[in-house]
Amino acid sequence: MFNFDFFGDWKLKKIIIICKRPTRIEKKLAVFFNAWLMDQIPDQTADVFHRSGDKPYTIHAEATSSELKFIVSLLKEKKVQEITTFFDNFSKDKIVFNSVNEEFKIRQIKKEECSEKDLTERFYQEDAARIFNLDFISPTAFKSQNSFIFLPDIRLIFQSLMRKYEYVFSDTDHVDVELLDQIIQSTRIKHFKIKSEYYSIHQAFIPGFKGKIKLSCSGPQTLVNYVNLLLKFGEYAGIGVKTGLGMGAVLVNQDRKKDGENG
Amino acid sequence: MFNFDFFGDWKLKKIIIICKRPTRIEKKLAVFFNAWLMDQIPDQTADVFHRSGDKPYTIHAEATSSELKFIVSLLKEKKVQEITTFFDNFSKDKIVFNSVNEEFKIRQIKKEECSEKDLTERFYQEDAARIFNLDFISPTAFKSQNSFIFLPDIRLIFQSLMRKYEYVFSDTDHVDVELLDQIIQSTRIKHFKIKSEYYSIHQAFIPGFKGKIKLSCSGPQTLVNYVNLLLKFGEYAGIGVKTGLGMGAVLVNQDRKKDGENG
Repeated sequence: MFNFDFFGDWKLKKIIIICKRPTRIEKKLAVFFNAWLMDQIPDQTADVFHRSGDKPYTIHAEATSSELKFIVSLLKEKKVQEITTFFDNFSKDKIVFNSVNEEFKIRQIKKEECSEKDLTERFYQEDAARIFNLDFISPTAFKSQNSFIFLPDIRLIFQSLMRKYEYVFSDTDHVDVELLDQIIQSTRIKHFKIKSEYYSIHQAFIPGFKGKIKLSCSGPQTLVNYVNLLLKFGEYAGIGVKTGLGMGAVLVNQDRKKDGENG
Repeated sequence: MFNFDFFGDWKLKKIIIICKRPTRIEKKLAVFFNAWLMDQIPDQTADVFHRSGDKPYTIHAEATSSELKFIVSLLKEKKVQEITTFFDNFSKDKIVFNSVNEEFKIRQIKKEECSEKDLTERFYQEDAARIFNLDFISPTAFKSQNSFIFLPDIRLIFQSLMRKYEYVFSDTDHVDVELLDQIIQSTRIKHFKIKSEYYSIHQAFIPGFKGKIKLSCSGPQTLVNYVNLLLKFGEYAGIGVKTGLGMGAVLVNQDRKKDGENG
């Protein structure tokens, strides 16, 4: 049912560039950051990313009251070698977006990794809780039948995660529909607080939703663990469309299992 | 396509009982109010409402910072005669919920009506705007395939309104599926800000959503007007399940047409 052989030694990586917070936070920052990043790598590679629609990395921007973070997640080792190399050698103290004449003073660069072991430990754990808190921190949308869906549909969320997972680890976009059906049958939204927010990419405005949802999975423990693994993966891969340009960024928290709760 | 003959002289009626705001607002107020109202009418009629699942009236409670309103909408003339008579003769200065030993001092009772003319004027207007602001003021949910859906699904919203409309004015629950499809094809959600809220009825907790959605209808003017009429009707009939016990209460505002906008 699940095959983890394809992981190898590759680790999902997050590069977190922490900057001084500018006075005004522009919504399109991740779009500009992507343009900046593409300028730092060989034209030919940037071209491939642009033309193929391949998404071996995701980008989003996150602002707090004091900081602005640009976060790049590297998903597919072979396809992101040049981005990895660029950041390994990166030593500038600021980022300059030429197109909009804006610069950001860098305070710190952090790296995070998620290895095969980290994900499969989630998969093989015996006592994982069944409640997941999903925080959609940038506008999230799905493409379905040529239109954008911007409500948290369980099927579209997990279909997106499974598709991205297959793309990253097995180079296909084949989704195991039976497994997806099992997830949908046993997973439901218990709470949500969401609002719509349009995301501007070049000349287009893509509708999305932001906010929090609480999921509960009532399936067998193996399924709960698989849901856990997919959602953790989602912190790197994002959910839905345009994850390379700032959309679909999520954080997940699994509620701790209470004493006496038995599966 | 549309037949308004069945209206006759009957008017949809709202009875708004404005009370002093209690310190603590209990979520189940509309459930208790319904129990109180059923105590005021002949047992046999109350029994019919209870057993048949017939919904010729809706009830909800609305609290502001200074007031608490109980709102009863009377939808089906013949079936609500005894409720109408009761309120026509009502002269008490307080409402007492015996079951929970609570009483509410009445400040004022208002009545509103919506006649055939009011609704059909909406239908025949030539310059109605295409943007509708829907405010779900009490938890709203739909029953679909034996489970509760508590997200604002366009099909479920309009299917519910059309079904209630037919029930009130033509005594069937037949929905014109072709017309519903036309509405769905040309109506979409542009913005929303919603959150889940569970509604407690007796021993059950029914999941619902509350909040605001903005709809836009791009169909022919006749369809826009029909949507307008259905939504206005929704202010009386409510949307979705358990509208007799406090759920599914909505208010609608149509954006004013801007100068120069031409349909």
